[in-house]
Amino acid sequence: MSQPQPLDVAIIGGGVSGTYSAWRLQQAHGDSLRIQLFEYGDRIGGRLFSVKLPGLPNVVAEVGGMRYMPGADGHVMVDTLVQHLGLPSKDFPMGNELPKDAPIGAQDNLFYLRGQRFRFRDFVEAPHKIPYDLGWTERGYNPEDLQVNVMNSIYPGFDKLSLAEQMQVQVFGKPIWRYGFWDLLYRVLSNEGYQFMKDAGGYEANVANASAVTQLPATEYSDATVFRTLKDGFQSLPLTLAQRFSEQAGGLVPADQRIQMNRRLAALSYSDDTEYPYRLHLRHTETVNGKTHDLEGEDIVHARQVILALPRRALELIDSPLFDDPWLKDNLGSVLVQSAFKLFLAYEQPWWRNLGLVAGRSVTDLPIRQCYYMGTECDQAGGENTFNSLLMASYNDIGTVPFWKGLEDGPEFTGYTPRSLEGRIANDAVVPRTQFQISDEMVRIAQRQVTQLHAQVELPAPYSAVYHAWDADPYGGGWHEWKANYRLDLIIQKMRHPVKDQQVFIVGEAYSYGQGWVEGALTTAESALQEFFELPRPNWLPASYQLLPTPAPEEINYATPPMPSQAPQVLEAITQAICAGVKP
Amino acid sequence: MSQPQPLDVAIIGGGVSGTYSAWRLQQAHGDSLRIQLFEYGDRIGGRLFSVKLPGLPNVVAEVGGMRYMPGADGHVMVDTLVQHLGLPSKDFPMGNELPKDAPIGAQDNLFYLRGQRFRFRDFVEAPHKIPYDLGWTERGYNPEDLQVNVMNSIYPGFDKLSLAEQMQVQVFGKPIWRYGFWDLLYRVLSNEGYQFMKDAGGYEANVANASAVTQLPATEYSDATVFRTLKDGFQSLPLTLAQRFSEQAGGLVPADQRIQMNRRLAALSYSDDTEYPYRLHLRHTETVNGKTHDLEGEDIVHARQVILALPRRALELIDSPLFDDPWLKDNLGSVLVQSAFKLFLAYEQPWWRNLGLVAGRSVTDLPIRQCYYMGTECDQAGGENTFNSLLMASYNDIGTVPFWKGLEDGPEFTGYTPRSLEGRIANDAVVPRTQFQISDEMVRIAQRQVTQLHAQVELPAPYSAVYHAWDADPYGGGWHEWKANYRLDLIIQKMRHPVKDQQVFIVGEAYSYGQGWVEGALTTAESALQEFFELPRPNWLPASYQLLPTPAPEEINYATPPMPSQAPQVLEAITQAICAGVKP
Repeated sequence: MSQPQPLDVAIIGGGVSGTYSAWRLQQAHGDSLRIQLFEYGDRIGGRLFSVKLPGLPNVVAEVGGMRYMPGADGHVMVDTLVQHLGLPSKDFPMGNELPKDAPIGAQDNLFYLRGQRFRFRDFVEAPHKIPYDLGWTERGYNPEDLQVNVMNSIYPGFDKLSLAEQMQVQVFGKPIWRYGFWDLLYRVLSNEGYQFMKDAGGYEANVANASAVTQLPATEYSDATVFRTLKDGFQSLPLTLAQRFSEQAGGLVPADQRIQMNRRLAALSYSDDTEYPYRLHLRHTETVNGKTHDLEGEDIVHARQVILALPRRALELIDSPLFDDPWLKDNLGSVLVQSAFKLFLAYEQPWWRNLGLVAGRSVTDLPIRQCYYMGTECDQAGGENTFNSLLMASYNDIGTVPFWKGLEDGPEFTGYTPRSLEGRIANDAVVPRTQFQISDEMVRIAQRQVTQLHAQVELPAPYSAVYHAWDADPYGGGWHEWKANYRLDLIIQKMRHPVKDQQVFIVGEAYSYGQGWVEGALTTAESALQEFFELPRPNWLPASYQLLPTPAPEEINYATPPMPSQAPQVLEAITQAICAGVKP
Repeated sequence: MSQPQPLDVAIIGGGVSGTYSAWRLQQAHGDSLRIQLFEYGDRIGGRLFSVKLPGLPNVVAEVGGMRYMPGADGHVMVDTLVQHLGLPSKDFPMGNELPKDAPIGAQDNLFYLRGQRFRFRDFVEAPHKIPYDLGWTERGYNPEDLQVNVMNSIYPGFDKLSLAEQMQVQVFGKPIWRYGFWDLLYRVLSNEGYQFMKDAGGYEANVANASAVTQLPATEYSDATVFRTLKDGFQSLPLTLAQRFSEQAGGLVPADQRIQMNRRLAALSYSDDTEYPYRLHLRHTETVNGKTHDLEGEDIVHARQVILALPRRALELIDSPLFDDPWLKDNLGSVLVQSAFKLFLAYEQPWWRNLGLVAGRSVTDLPIRQCYYMGTECDQAGGENTFNSLLMASYNDIGTVPFWKGLEDGPEFTGYTPRSLEGRIANDAVVPRTQFQISDEMVRIAQRQVTQLHAQVELPAPYSAVYHAWDADPYGGGWHEWKANYRLDLIIQKMRHPVKDQQVFIVGEAYSYGQGWVEGALTTAESALQEFFELPRPNWLPASYQLLPTPAPEEINYATPPMPSQAPQVLEAITQAICAGVKP
């Protein structure tokens, strides 16, 4: 058992919020503070995990987070940080860049629900094709537009309010933040309308019974949203941050010791040492083919301050008196941990183009749930001259994850060497070795469902494949959602420094205002650095951008319902949108 | 911190397997062994929990387990134990006692799915009314019969095989025990067929991706199954066992000390004491209105043997080196913990009789999922002369539980005093105080869904209500299901004495062959008492009844597929059943 030098700041977790915190602190204080980052496994990135399948160097399989929303109304911090770091980015095509009447494009993407096939445009153009017994106010809309209608029927212009204002809204005699989204939808949608939103929306999490205050205005997964991604994969963001943290010149901790991989924070205890009061029990781990397990050894590290850059489940796995704090005990469970699953298949040709499908997604109630057409190598800027193509054959969550978990075991999928790589890679290198080694059966069943969705007899066989299930420890799930009945506006603020007398900080996506997105991880981290570590605001971050939402007062006055500015225009816009949807 | 006398046997958990073990051991060895039972809360019963609502002394609201299957093919141990203890039992009516052509009865119970209403008889008599795009082999059956068809199409007569034989069955080139049930159904049912079974079957757990070997032949939830229940509530079984354990004359532990309520086993450690090697850290708890929380005090008790009569989640909450054992580590997670929810409404009249509904259940895809018509007071043997009636307004599981969890908070439901009790009970005693105090909103939404399901404008208001959500600690869920890919035949045997060198035993429903039933809890307990505590078989238990299924050999030979005895008759019966279902 070694006894390393005590640290000024110990950062736990090598995901985006941990590496970001480490980089920023090292830049600002590396010459005066001893800073180290500890990562449980052998991979920097956390829930950003970019896999490059053979033959597809420019079409990355993002088995974790895959995109962000650029622009002033979007993920400002991701966008500007990526630019500051000089990471090349590119569009994440959803098929909407094509004109609405183009022969191919997202309007023609496929839906296969309740045994019926129809196209995206049919929601509006041929509502009789939609196999749901929808109410008269529900017909003629795609799931996202129906959600906007629902939002406006509950509180016109709800999305135009600030979070503080939204917290002051009452509906049906109860504060909206006390509603589960499903409980609220039950009041304004038919049950078929709800099932339609769940099935056709693609994401079960989007209609889960999480806090209505955050779910109601969330239409960001719409097929019309503009996304960007990183050319070398989204994981290149935390990897670059980790590298910059390590390579920063000078510094009290030698460069090659700043990041300690394969260390699991098993316990965080308080010691009598007044200068370095935190005792970190860092269990050694080993990662073999992506799977991490404990070894015998343990480092004891003392620290003055600790940043836990971790999701809820990882926090719950730490043995610490910190979690006996009454407020933390009550609020650690304020978020739902949602399981998610992604499966990619690589083909030698983009067979979907032949069917008139180019980009974006098709949606089904088969367990694959969503197919994303990710692109072809020769179509990419700087891409190789092959037709090798990537399909995200499944992107699903919550209720359908167990279907795939049941197919994990059995003989491994071996794939085959694509012609473009013949003689250039070993046969056993065609399928990457990851934590979740894909089975032959899983590939076969996914391929069959893709074939069913597209109503084909047989499709070309995939030559490589990779999947990741976001349900296992230490992550617990793919993302988090605020539960109903919690004052999330206050928790977002307080969770960063949950116990007043302790210099322990919690950052990351889990308890943020950008759950499910990298933006949530970065904004909690940056705001914590500014407030509790006195770091100046970075010059690359627009001064006007608010990192965390302003909370409502502790005691909310529900007597004066907030109104969106330009309220009359909001009403007019709502009526026009409704009329556009109601067609003969 | 007190230091009580060491125990010969410490039993943890006051559910049915714990109280049964205590009673049997005390009877056999109370004069020579010091035996104590420790219960976390203030209630004996565990997941048997019988609530008597005011005005309904003879129609019990079973918020936990509610019934058993009598007879030689059913729950022999529950049945004979109940008779041995002299507990009065009665039929649990499903509406099938009426002739098939009677004007009222289960054949006419209601289904409300995908916005369409139809009756049970319509599955066969009017298949065009069923709003699922079923395949030609799937039409004309109710969900249970469709499951039987599926079973026979996968392996004819699978339910006629013993578990050991079932473990030897291979389908589609893979042992059936390696299949998740959903994964297997995907191969033989259309996706609409699967959704139909999930929606119309009423129980999501019945088509969950648990082990195909136990799920496939499980059609016991059929509307045609004959059930019984205890006149004074199913909880009277563990309550009687606890009482008999305490009151047994003689014994080394004084009668009033044998059961220690409000003690939580926080840790189970090993000591150097060779005679009493187990150190139990029993945290004091307090229960207020059914909610249990920790107090400061702790008892340390030493014991020679320990019986953990607990479900999976409760085991996981114990800090103990026992769970570092490699086999236990691998197999504690071999079962799924399924959440469940029950909500009862009491009315002054059985309004459903007016609609031609008498007993059994109606099923919907609304979040209430299942309505059970539980009965009317004046209709019971020895019942009071009132029309007070009980409706199980909701019995749902897994995916719909979060809908109801979101309605837990807010003003409490107060009900009103029914005419039959006017002047006889206090107004604030109309609604019982339980762990999950029912909110006005939850009652209102449940009542509305009941009204929707029955296509009524308004129904009489309920005067009392009670609910219970089986998802919280220490239970984790309502019942358990074996996961795919586990040798459950071997685990059932070994889990009872999981670590060879330790005298610690695990019994209960969780790792049994009767999951979801009291029979599972009793058979693991009785078999453990016989094998590891050398208790003779009770004389009231039929000698022919096998407590645990015989396991298959450690190494299974799949080369010789087992056949049901009388195989030709099985084939003939299958064809006849199929022909009966396929009608013009």
